[in-house]
Amino acid sequence: MSIQEESAQPDGAAAMAGASAPPLSPSDYGLASPPLDLCAACGHCHQLEENHEYLYRDEVDDDLVCHICLQALIRPLDTPCGHTYCQECLTSFLLESDFCPVCRAPLMLQSCRKPSLLVHKLLDKLTVACPFSDHCAVTLARGELEDHIKSR
Amino acid sequence: MSIQEESAQPDGAAAMAGASAPPLSPSDYGLASPPLDLCAACGHCHQLEENHEYLYRDEVDDDLVCHICLQALIRPLDTPCGHTYCQECLTSFLLESDFCPVCRAPLMLQSCRKPSLLVHKLLDKLTVACPFSDHCAVTLARGELEDHIKSR
Repeated sequence: MSIQEESAQPDGAAAMAGASAPPLSPSDYGLASPPLDLCAACGHCHQLEENHEYLYRDEVDDDLVCHICLQALIRPLDTPCGHTYCQECLTSFLLESDFCPVCRAPLMLQSCRKPSLLVHKLLDKLTVACPFSDHCAVTLARGELEDHIKSR
Repeated sequence: MSIQEESAQPDGAAAMAGASAPPLSPSDYGLASPPLDLCAACGHCHQLEENHEYLYRDEVDDDLVCHICLQALIRPLDTPCGHTYCQECLTSFLLESDFCPVCRAPLMLQSCRKPSLLVHKLLDKLTVACPFSDHCAVTLARGELEDHIKSR
């Protein structure tokens, strides 16, 4: 499974909630600056408890993809059985389950922990496009997007 | 820092021990099969307590490099402060030190643990050349090299 260029799919939590309409993108607003209800970190409109959304410009390595939302990991958490998921995806999943989605080993959120800096750095440097594509053609590292949005 | 094609440097433990002669490579023996003192996993001659040696065919991502030996991580260990080193490199370093080589946080080997499967999978798929280059021009995933050597 690979995430191709410009694949902007809803995040795992939204997908699991059965949301059928695509999330609003910044260009739907036709504004140069994000209104208050746009996320300051990713520039998309989503609930606080949902994952950020990104427009990936390059293929994302399979091993950096969450097995719940099938998108590049966001705020990753390692399980004791060795698997890694987005914090939001795993939190939602464990509301109604008590096992690892991949290997089905017994699992509690409290026993999970953040991966090492290595993993965060690999994710931070994934290339994304500025979500305000009507006004900005910049592509940059995912970890730099929040500062880029703030500086617009 | 990047590891370029075919850079086969001595591993960290050997470098720290001040070894000046380059390690013997399989082609030095001129044999079709490895003698007993060649490592069955990497096809090079090294001590048990030293890292395996590989001939990387592509540039290795900086974030997959050990900050002690400056080679792609081998049997990685995460520290509680979030850094990752080869097990052999860190074990050797902590024989005479009690801090993290990068951030200098207090550190004991017992408090370190293996990273998630994600990291192992990223390392396993680094492309390496068969060390028996006089007789075999195969390049393959690092994680497949041991089986390849056994099947020769």
